[in-house]
Amino acid sequence: RSEEKAAAAAALKPSVKVGGRFFYDVADFSQNQASLNQVGDAEDEMRLRWCWIELGGNVLENTTYRVWFDVAAQVSLLDVYLDFGELPFIQNFRVGHFFEPFSMEQLTPNKYLETMERSSPFLLGRNMGIMAHSDNAEANWTYGVGLFVSEQGSKPPFYEGDTDASAITGRVTYLPWYDEASDGRGLIHLGAGYSWRHLGDGNTQFQNRPDSALAPVIVNTGLIDADYYHLAGLEAAYVYGSFTLQSAYHWVSVDTDNFGSESFDHYYVQASYFLTGENRSYNRRSGSFSNRVVPYENFFRVRTEDNYICNGLGAWELAYRFSHDDLNSDNIFGGTDYRHLAGLNWYLSPFTRVMFQYVYSNTDDQVASNGELHVFQTRLQFDF
Amino acid sequence: RSEEKAAAAAALKPSVKVGGRFFYDVADFSQNQASLNQVGDAEDEMRLRWCWIELGGNVLENTTYRVWFDVAAQVSLLDVYLDFGELPFIQNFRVGHFFEPFSMEQLTPNKYLETMERSSPFLLGRNMGIMAHSDNAEANWTYGVGLFVSEQGSKPPFYEGDTDASAITGRVTYLPWYDEASDGRGLIHLGAGYSWRHLGDGNTQFQNRPDSALAPVIVNTGLIDADYYHLAGLEAAYVYGSFTLQSAYHWVSVDTDNFGSESFDHYYVQASYFLTGENRSYNRRSGSFSNRVVPYENFFRVRTEDNYICNGLGAWELAYRFSHDDLNSDNIFGGTDYRHLAGLNWYLSPFTRVMFQYVYSNTDDQVASNGELHVFQTRLQFDF
Amino acid sequence: RSEEKAAAAAALKPSVKVGGRFFYDVADFSQNQASLNQVGDAEDEMRLRWCWIELGGNVLENTTYRVWFDVAAQVSLLDVYLDFGELPFIQNFRVGHFFEPFSMEQLTPNKYLETMERSSPFLLGRNMGIMAHSDNAEANWTYGVGLFVSEQGSKPPFYEGDTDASAITGRVTYLPWYDEASDGRGLIHLGAGYSWRHLGDGNTQFQNRPDSALAPVIVNTGLIDADYYHLAGLEAAYVYGSFTLQSAYHWVSVDTDNFGSESFDHYYVQASYFLTGENRSYNRRSGSFSNRVVPYENFFRVRTEDNYICNGLGAWELAYRFSHDDLNSDNIFGGTDYRHLAGLNWYLSPFTRVMFQYVYSNTDDQVASNGELHVFQTRLQFDF
Repeated sequence: RSEEKAAAAAALKPSVKVGGRFFYDVADFSQNQASLNQVGDAEDEMRLRWCWIELGGNVLENTTYRVWFDVAAQVSLLDVYLDFGELPFIQNFRVGHFFEPFSMEQLTPNKYLETMERSSPFLLGRNMGIMAHSDNAEANWTYGVGLFVSEQGSKPPFYEGDTDASAITGRVTYLPWYDEASDGRGLIHLGAGYSWRHLGDGNTQFQNRPDSALAPVIVNTGLIDADYYHLAGLEAAYVYGSFTLQSAYHWVSVDTDNFGSESFDHYYVQASYFLTGENRSYNRRSGSFSNRVVPYENFFRVRTEDNYICNGLGAWELAYRFSHDDLNSDNIFGGTDYRHLAGLNWYLSPFTRVMFQYVYSNTDDQVASNGELHVFQTRLQFDF
Repeated sequence: RSEEKAAAAAALKPSVKVGGRFFYDVADFSQNQASLNQVGDAEDEMRLRWCWIELGGNVLENTTYRVWFDVAAQVSLLDVYLDFGELPFIQNFRVGHFFEPFSMEQLTPNKYLETMERSSPFLLGRNMGIMAHSDNAEANWTYGVGLFVSEQGSKPPFYEGDTDASAITGRVTYLPWYDEASDGRGLIHLGAGYSWRHLGDGNTQFQNRPDSALAPVIVNTGLIDADYYHLAGLEAAYVYGSFTLQSAYHWVSVDTDNFGSESFDHYYVQASYFLTGENRSYNRRSGSFSNRVVPYENFFRVRTEDNYICNGLGAWELAYRFSHDDLNSDNIFGGTDYRHLAGLNWYLSPFTRVMFQYVYSNTDDQVASNGELHVFQTRLQFDF
Repeated sequence: RSEEKAAAAAALKPSVKVGGRFFYDVADFSQNQASLNQVGDAEDEMRLRWCWIELGGNVLENTTYRVWFDVAAQVSLLDVYLDFGELPFIQNFRVGHFFEPFSMEQLTPNKYLETMERSSPFLLGRNMGIMAHSDNAEANWTYGVGLFVSEQGSKPPFYEGDTDASAITGRVTYLPWYDEASDGRGLIHLGAGYSWRHLGDGNTQFQNRPDSALAPVIVNTGLIDADYYHLAGLEAAYVYGSFTLQSAYHWVSVDTDNFGSESFDHYYVQASYFLTGENRSYNRRSGSFSNRVVPYENFFRVRTEDNYICNGLGAWELAYRFSHDDLNSDNIFGGTDYRHLAGLNWYLSPFTRVMFQYVYSNTDDQVASNGELHVFQTRLQFDF
């Protein structure tokens, strides 16, 4: 009996895969006087941006788990969840700490983004919660809807308070066109998301940096006294071979204590092109570009089976993004900015990438107009 | 020679198993006015209680090691030890940071406890030290005795001081009855423990929460100036099929600087019953319920070999515990409490458990009498 | 196409090896009155010195990576790098956070040092940078040269500042004699290193402890206002069977703001002998003793194939080191010290070592002369 039980337990034992990723960033800044007045001197910086340790696997046949944490500075938790699959009606059910289902940009893993940082000041990040979601690799649609803690104390992920700090967030995506034959080298993606967020602590804040985690904050509403806010988003993407066009619009309306309803918004338009012929890799499970880009040839020499030496270029990708933040409302003046980003990404292998990026940002706030901040940044990225 | 040596080294290479566990807790509280006066408002809370990363394995034939740490907040170290086995006379010898050999409740891994938290305010936790202990899966007794650092500075585990902050701790257990045929579905366990603790820093403190890590402290002696204290414990458990009865009594006597010898105590009585027929799984190596409970059927659908779909309930367990703390002595008035705990545990699989728990605690202290605190808490637990 | 790509990606998937190491240290101190005046009372201490988690592996055929971090206290990052190999001319190229190429003592992994701590106050440690280096297991020379961030902010590894805080560091080693037949049981190693370091923050500091991480600092220049400094080193080692002799000289010249050029130096001479016949294991890739010592017999009993029980002693090694720090210059008076270290190392297995060590240090500084500090320390070391 005991041996049978032990054997049965062993057969069902959770699998464990250990992985990780690290990103090294270097950024230089150049500013005009208006920008200096707005944000002070942006000092050049070199930094280990992320150093993630990733544990995950399967338990039984249809449940997956993740324990991911960052050790670049203090330990901070990333995905820590259980995901139950193959459920009737809802397909999947996830419990833990993970990304709320909002924004294709957010749901694209950072290691697969065309750019070093995401664009929107309204991303929700990871929160504690529960989520129903689809998970079908052959569907032309996805959905996700969940209940989350809308704000968190300091680490560990927790919320304490007798008031209700909860959020309801949902997203649907649809593919009017998906070219099966080429495995997604042609597709049109449409999506919409919405989040209703009650603020237990009675305030919220929106801010953004110029497409660089090492740059200073350029627009910032400061703390806004409010009990809840609405966030809505629309997104679209178009892939045609090596070319990708992608755009999103985010709109926020905050029910403030002092001024009534105040609204802010953001949009971006982004294009990328693989000079070496590869394509962004769309994942129909998640409705985002969350599959790995595999270069046709690695940069490193590899010896083929018939003993030739193959000396590849790696994959090379051009990227451009225009984005615009408007954090001014009728009574709150967080500033506005627009940004041009130009990038060149070199995939040495499926696991190693070097990114070169230039950003021009132009900010208007209550201090000055046309604050110009130029960012020159480089990243070495590796994941395993 | 060098290749031989390399081969020999490889053959002896330590094995490495990577695992972990995470617990998500939600607790709501309700209090009467006396409790509000005693402990203030207990705010509802949601928290990642633990997130452990567990490395461990074997080296050579008879030595095991563990490096376990928690990353839920800051990194904190759990088990970090080497355990040498198959030694003459003493059987095993352990060096490092690990649980002192005291209290069945303490030595039961948190993932296998019937309740979300342990009951006693006098548990010793993990400390740096050395321990001789038995490790025999077929014996009807166990022993453990060790020398430990009786107190620690802040992290990393260390002690600094010219005074001696050491403790001697021991525990013996005995099984007057153990049903081999059913692999322990019937047993009687008896145990006793003792610790003598010299306090290098010249003080100690005892406190407790009402069976919930998210609840406030309800009884608390405050710092007691003292040079050493004695801790004694008695424990018993009875398993009959799916039914388990378990109890322990802890008694502390502190040689205080100001009042002479002052004593405190604690006891609990705990019962549990598996509605679905499983049983608590006793481990004769450690003298505690530290083996995994494997549900007869998992909650998830599993497809059997002959292609039927088997739709199991998982395992369901009822638990009840009465406990009592007395932190009042002749001259120190830390308060007294008694608690009723009722719990329902649902094992979805051997690795996943959801716990529902209600606790009623009644506290008398110098501020008020009959402070009533009700705890409603839920846990999602997963380990891999 | 997609399956081919997936298969190709899988074939190239990075390998992941998980390992670690932990060191437990206990140190007792004894001081004369002069030492008490100099450094105060050195309190006895017990400490988890290190607890490293080590992830690493290969990607493609010629690239290796490491993500190592310490969790003994807060998380702190150790090696986090990518190393590209088999490159024309330079052989290897490394990017990330790793040891600068200076000093055989520094480049010997702590788990393979004869002593518990390194000797020199001028070691550079790990820094962010890039390095070209050789990596040839059969060469009689090595080189390494790199560009590094010469100072770092607090964690995470980063540097922020518009001034240039960079360092150029290089090292070459040469083996005039290496006995191939015995795999290095006879060799002569010579090496030289140099580092030019620009100080972005405008100051630097040198200090040292008496061969014990748990002891107080005994010599200390304090902060020196300076823009750059030079560091040079010479090293030599001689292995003859079980006997090893090793020495290094480090010399620093600081271009101070207030006094012009000020210089400090350090040297040590170290001998070790394996009573049980093993030898220090030189690694020709790195030009240091960074290969594992494998005892001829493990301490633990092992059962041989023909069923005899073999009861080995483990390996036993004697070590002695004389070292001298001179942190006095014309205008800066950090103190001078000399130290005698006597050690006995017991290798229970290739992975487990117990170290016993006595250090006598004699310090002269501006407070007192002939401050005598005696250190009695023990370490339990394990790696996996």
